[in-house]
Amino acid sequence: MELLFLGTGAGMPAKMRNVSSVALKMLNERGAVWLFDCGEATQHQILHTSLKPRRVEKIFITHLHGDHIFGLPGFLGSRSFQGGDLPLTVYGPPGIKEFIEVSLRVSCTRLQYELTVVEIEEGIIFEDETMRVETRLLDHGIASYGYRVCEKDKPGVLLVDRLKADGIPPGPYYKEIKEGRTIQLADGRLIVPDAYVGPSQKGKVLAILGDTRPCEAAGMLAQEADLLVHEATFAADQPQMAHDYFHSTTQQAAKIAREAGAKALCLTHISSRYTKEEVALLQTEAEAVFAPVIIAYDLMELSI
Amino acid sequence: MELLFLGTGAGMPAKMRNVSSVALKMLNERGAVWLFDCGEATQHQILHTSLKPRRVEKIFITHLHGDHIFGLPGFLGSRSFQGGDLPLTVYGPPGIKEFIEVSLRVSCTRLQYELTVVEIEEGIIFEDETMRVETRLLDHGIASYGYRVCEKDKPGVLLVDRLKADGIPPGPYYKEIKEGRTIQLADGRLIVPDAYVGPSQKGKVLAILGDTRPCEAAGMLAQEADLLVHEATFAADQPQMAHDYFHSTTQQAAKIAREAGAKALCLTHISSRYTKEEVALLQTEAEAVFAPVIIAYDLMELSI
Repeated sequence: MELLFLGTGAGMPAKMRNVSSVALKMLNERGAVWLFDCGEATQHQILHTSLKPRRVEKIFITHLHGDHIFGLPGFLGSRSFQGGDLPLTVYGPPGIKEFIEVSLRVSCTRLQYELTVVEIEEGIIFEDETMRVETRLLDHGIASYGYRVCEKDKPGVLLVDRLKADGIPPGPYYKEIKEGRTIQLADGRLIVPDAYVGPSQKGKVLAILGDTRPCEAAGMLAQEADLLVHEATFAADQPQMAHDYFHSTTQQAAKIAREAGAKALCLTHISSRYTKEEVALLQTEAEAVFAPVIIAYDLMELSI
Repeated sequence: MELLFLGTGAGMPAKMRNVSSVALKMLNERGAVWLFDCGEATQHQILHTSLKPRRVEKIFITHLHGDHIFGLPGFLGSRSFQGGDLPLTVYGPPGIKEFIEVSLRVSCTRLQYELTVVEIEEGIIFEDETMRVETRLLDHGIASYGYRVCEKDKPGVLLVDRLKADGIPPGPYYKEIKEGRTIQLADGRLIVPDAYVGPSQKGKVLAILGDTRPCEAAGMLAQEADLLVHEATFAADQPQMAHDYFHSTTQQAAKIAREAGAKALCLTHISSRYTKEEVALLQTEAEAVFAPVIIAYDLMELSI
C-alpha cells in the first residue's frame, strides 16, 4: 500500500499546496485506489501522477467544507468521460448525497458507471475479506469524521519444503493446510497445519483524519496505527487560534500520535502562510513530542 | 480592456489547457473584472495571474456543463476568504441558482459579500452608463448562451485650446460643454458644443460565446464585433463529429466571423487531442476562411 498526497493545504488552494485529497494505492493488494477527500482540482493533480481515475473504487469524505469536496463533481464526471465503467462508492457525512446529486443533475453529467453514495455515521462503514473501515466523529464545528482503515491479517506462507521433507506430496491438501484445516492423509496420518504454515502477516492500520481539534476520537482511531495522518493547520505557538477555528497545532497532533501508540505521524492540511523554512520548523517542534513526523507535500508518496 | 484566458480546453482539464474561463479586465475603465464561465480550478489559474478575485464584479455563465461551472463554488468561497467585500452578480441559465445555493449551503460556506444570482433569458441582461450585455441562445443540446458585450461610445475630448482661443475662460461651463449641452456665456454668446468637442470614441464590442454548433444567433451576437471569441472543439475535417456533439469546427467558427463582419476571431475550447503542431494547423485552416484568427492558450492576454 502506498499513500499519495494530492493536496496538502488548508482552506484555499495555493501555488505549492492544493486543497485536501490523499490517495491510498492498493494496486497489488486489490487492484484499486481509495481517495480520502476530493478538494477542487484533485483531478488536475492526478494528471501529474500515474493514478487512473477508473481504478478509484471508493472515496471517503471526511467533512463537507469546500476545500474537501469541491473537486468531487469534476472527478466523477471525468472518470466516466475517460471510460471508467467500474462501480464507485462515495462515503461522507449527510449532505454529500444532495451535493453530488444536484451538481451532476444541473450540469447534465451522465455517468457510465454505477455510483453509490453512502451517508455515514460512526461505526464500521465497510468490511470485506481483506479490509475494514471504521469512522468516528471528530471535533470541528461541523460533522468531521476520521477513518481507521485496517488491512486484515494475511495467512502465513505455506512451508512447502517442510511438507515435502515429511513426505506429504503436493495436492489439494496443500490449499486446505494453508487455510488452517487439519487433514488426514491416505496413510492415516493427521496433519495439523500449525507445523506447516509460517506466522500470519499482520495487516497494516492507517488512521486518516478530517479537520479537527485534538479529541478523544482521534486517539481511538489512531490506536497502535502504523501511520496516523493528522491535520496541523497551526504551529505549536498558536493553540488559541487552532481552538477558535476548530483545528490542531503540530504538537497537539503529535500528542495524539504519542498517546495512541502510533508508529508514525504524517502532518497535512498545512497553511500556506508557512514558508518552506517554517515548514521544517513545524516538523522539528512536532518531533519534540513524538517521532517520526513527516510533513506532507503535494505529490509525496509514502509506502505503508 | 484586456481579455485574459484562464482556461481554453474542452470537456476535461489537461496539463496544458484547463477547462473554460476567460476574464475581461476593465481595470482602467471601471476598476473591475468580469468572468465568462468558471470551470474547475479557475481560482487555481488566477493564482498565476495578477487578477484579484475581489475585483471580479460579474460572472457570466454560458451554460451549465461541468467544465464551465464546477469552479464556481470554490471561487465564490475563496473570494470571501480573501477579504472580498464588494457585491458580485452571477448570470447564467436556469439551474445556476440551485447549483450555487446547494454547493454553498452543504459546504457551510458563508460569504462576506452580497451575492446576486440572475437566471437569464435572451435579451439585454445588463446595462449601465458605460456597458451593455445582451444574450442569445445558441445551439448546444442544453441551453447555451452567447454574450454580446458592448462598451458604449465615449464622449470626445474637450478641445480646451480652441475654447481658450475663442475667449471662453475655464469654469463650470467646460463640464457642461463636454457633456454636449449648449450654454450661454455672461456676455450673451451661445456656445454650441459640437465646435469644442472632438469626435466621440467608438465603444468596443465583444462577442463571447458558449459551446455551440454554428447558428444564426452566433452571427447576430458577433455582428461587426471587434472580437469574436468562438469555440472550435474540432478541426475542419470533423464537421460530423462537431454536429453530433453540438460543437463547431475551426472553419465553421471562421465562417460565422466572416459573415458577421467581425474584426478578429479568437478560437478557444480546443480539444486536448490536438498537439502543439496540430494547433498551428487549426489556425491555418481557419484563416483560409477568415483572418485574423488567434488560437487561445491558457493565460494568454489580448488587448481589445
